[in-house]
Amino acid sequence: MWKPDRTSKIALYQQISDYLEQRISYGEFPPGSLLPSERKLAEQFEVNRSTVISAFAELRSTGIIESRTGSGTRVSTSKWGATPKHTPNWSRFAEGGSFLPNLPFLRRIREALAQHPTLIDFASGELSADLAPTDEIAELMSKNAYTSYLGYDNPQGSMLLREALVDYLHNYRGIQASESSILITSGSQQSLYLITQCLLSPGDAVAIEDPSYCYSLPMFQSAGLRLFRLPVDTHGIEPEDIRTLYKKHRIKMVFLNPNYQNPTGTVLSDERRKRLLEIISELGLPVVEDDPYSLTSYDGLPLAPLKSMDTMGSILYIGSFSKIAASGLRIGWMVAPRSIVERLTDARQQMDFGLSIIPQQVAGQFLQSSYFHPHLERLRIQLQFKRDLLIESLEKELSGLIEYVVPVGGIHFWCKLIPNIPDSILLEESIKNGVVMVPGSVYGSDSGYVRFTFSRAKPDEIALGIARFAKAIRSLI
Amino acid sequence: MWKPDRTSKIALYQQISDYLEQRISYGEFPPGSLLPSERKLAEQFEVNRSTVISAFAELRSTGIIESRTGSGTRVSTSKWGATPKHTPNWSRFAEGGSFLPNLPFLRRIREALAQHPTLIDFASGELSADLAPTDEIAELMSKNAYTSYLGYDNPQGSMLLREALVDYLHNYRGIQASESSILITSGSQQSLYLITQCLLSPGDAVAIEDPSYCYSLPMFQSAGLRLFRLPVDTHGIEPEDIRTLYKKHRIKMVFLNPNYQNPTGTVLSDERRKRLLEIISELGLPVVEDDPYSLTSYDGLPLAPLKSMDTMGSILYIGSFSKIAASGLRIGWMVAPRSIVERLTDARQQMDFGLSIIPQQVAGQFLQSSYFHPHLERLRIQLQFKRDLLIESLEKELSGLIEYVVPVGGIHFWCKLIPNIPDSILLEESIKNGVVMVPGSVYGSDSGYVRFTFSRAKPDEIALGIARFAKAIRSLI
Repeated sequence: MWKPDRTSKIALYQQISDYLEQRISYGEFPPGSLLPSERKLAEQFEVNRSTVISAFAELRSTGIIESRTGSGTRVSTSKWGATPKHTPNWSRFAEGGSFLPNLPFLRRIREALAQHPTLIDFASGELSADLAPTDEIAELMSKNAYTSYLGYDNPQGSMLLREALVDYLHNYRGIQASESSILITSGSQQSLYLITQCLLSPGDAVAIEDPSYCYSLPMFQSAGLRLFRLPVDTHGIEPEDIRTLYKKHRIKMVFLNPNYQNPTGTVLSDERRKRLLEIISELGLPVVEDDPYSLTSYDGLPLAPLKSMDTMGSILYIGSFSKIAASGLRIGWMVAPRSIVERLTDARQQMDFGLSIIPQQVAGQFLQSSYFHPHLERLRIQLQFKRDLLIESLEKELSGLIEYVVPVGGIHFWCKLIPNIPDSILLEESIKNGVVMVPGSVYGSDSGYVRFTFSRAKPDEIALGIARFAKAIRSLI
Repeated sequence: MWKPDRTSKIALYQQISDYLEQRISYGEFPPGSLLPSERKLAEQFEVNRSTVISAFAELRSTGIIESRTGSGTRVSTSKWGATPKHTPNWSRFAEGGSFLPNLPFLRRIREALAQHPTLIDFASGELSADLAPTDEIAELMSKNAYTSYLGYDNPQGSMLLREALVDYLHNYRGIQASESSILITSGSQQSLYLITQCLLSPGDAVAIEDPSYCYSLPMFQSAGLRLFRLPVDTHGIEPEDIRTLYKKHRIKMVFLNPNYQNPTGTVLSDERRKRLLEIISELGLPVVEDDPYSLTSYDGLPLAPLKSMDTMGSILYIGSFSKIAASGLRIGWMVAPRSIVERLTDARQQMDFGLSIIPQQVAGQFLQSSYFHPHLERLRIQLQFKRDLLIESLEKELSGLIEYVVPVGGIHFWCKLIPNIPDSILLEESIKNGVVMVPGSVYGSDSGYVRFTFSRAKPDEIALGIARFAKAIRSLI
């Protein structure tokens, strides 16, 4: 006789409700027939009566059964007629699939931001409206409205944008690329998704920084990858750790964000870069270099990427517009060997058939316009200003309770809290006080760290936001 | 002692080259050292000498070894210095991952179209430039250039577009939807990708039409789904077949394209629709309804979708702009229960962080503009005209050699060839003659069927294209 499976991840009541639904749908209990009592079923399935009550509630909610006080539970007739009719069990489908949901903290943050528009936002990794080149892009769009045929475009990306990127990569990033080695994506997120889905197989070992943005991406777990960590200190990762992981776990790929790392803001030192390149070329190990922040260098000199020193072709380079211009354009790019570009182009065509040509054209025009360079200048100055406001406020409100290293570029500020407060309690209390930031555990760090992103809040919100955060902290210690 | 694995899918020479590369990288053969001769290694690995020659060629191409006539093969020193340096084996990475490549025929067709722009295209499932509302969209764009902040938008899709779709779905499709039940995607392709990746698990059984567009999508296999077929006759599928598959294989979902089905052009009959809805609600089985073509009904009355009769909430409804306006906008939508919309929104955020707001705004404005309805009128008349041209040409060139049912809407024409010609030979000969169509086996049908899409070719190309196709056929019989 059937019994619910206690080792299953599916709740007992859910298994029972599914089982009963199936028996009803096969006609075992015709419409109008009386079901066994809750007590009897509880005995039969060897569960608590409350579990059966929950299963009945589930079946009642979809109209399959009806209960009347004193006369037991019957298969519905009135509503569904002679044949029982069922709505698919959508909540079960929503829990299915091999794709993991976003981390609970990130879902909570997004939900809080959607519900409370007045929250001061130190969580979202994007620019504020005043930092984005909105007017410039609007002007380019009205001057150059797209008038050609809007058919399926090359899934590798618009040629206009790839040509603009060849110049951009050469002039700003010291990278020699050709149009055929560039794949346009809808941002770094899609670049990473394509790499993890198409170049790696379930069970493969990869190395990521610790803490790391990658850790916050369930796509790594969804792809069945085994993650190994490269601890980040004030000079970035220690390259020898890669060799150790390679020997021990045969890691197949390394994911790095060497410039103004997310979340720590650190820069991989020159000496370590050299050793890193030696080690990976010795091992023939590919590195994915995520490079979204380099142009925000506060001293005005964009930091060179690893890729510019990559004579061996070991590096898959990922760039994006999201952190330097407009995240809403949804434009990113990858520079990779031809075989990889072709493979990923084929895969992305199966996923989304390529990007709309309109934002690609806008992005290409913006890169080639006289607006681009002055925009970067302004962006750097404004970001530095916001960073300084943040530090000033933190020192005023929480002096002695925090430890940090001042970032010299990027949009993130990583901070250790000396009081010992669990991440979930800190997050909820912050939201209650009208401010939101990201607990460090989202990036795989120990409890007690916080990432403040200072690009999103308006300058006049920063002091108020930190005052609210400090209030939350003080109420918890 | 190591030997290559003859049961592996990896070529023997590749296994040998990987093995040698690994031994070299671990220092077993230091730079400058002599490798064993090809003959010796062939003996040791128990392979032909030519296999070792191929493995050496592979290693030479990455610079790991050097051969000089008469002095054997050595690990490189000059180029790589004291430590051997390796480029990652990118071709191996390009073959990795759990994501299957596109079908060879489809890759071949795409490649041919890219190489020979003069090919007459009966393969691409999209509109020709003259059928797309290019001027109308350009005018809307220049009138309404996007001037707001281009930040990350709601990953469920722009509210403006979802509101426009609520009206559109009500007025044109008889569907009652709310903004919260609509997810904007980058087209039907992404809608199907999200469903197969996030709602189904590897090993799940699903039912698809036979022949079916779904069969051409490796995403179904990549997701590990078991596909079961519902044969399509001139009135669509037989609903009882669904019950049979459900009993036999516990199918978890059904994928249907009831109106002007791709590739057959058939319409599911009214009587079968009613029985279908009864059966799926009896079984509590969800149906994915792909509805890209209904508005192209040649008699001017758009066919109602299944979803408009779905009182049980059993249907996930998929729509798109690609076949009725502009595929290059990359805009599609899904109407689904709230729990499903939320789940897929969360997943798509992990894949691509949502769509650019610009094409969404353009699509919303177009739907609400006075251009939309006249555009549809014109589209219907033009498509019917092209269909008639196609049939006229086929009758002139191949009378007696083909069998077909005349489609009364849509963009596809399904055709049985009476001469027995293998699909691959027919495709290559067609390309050689300057025309391309899709062999039926791409959709899972037996050999000897062909899909002609008549929307893409210009009216004056259709007769010429069919003449070329007929020439190809005649050269093969």
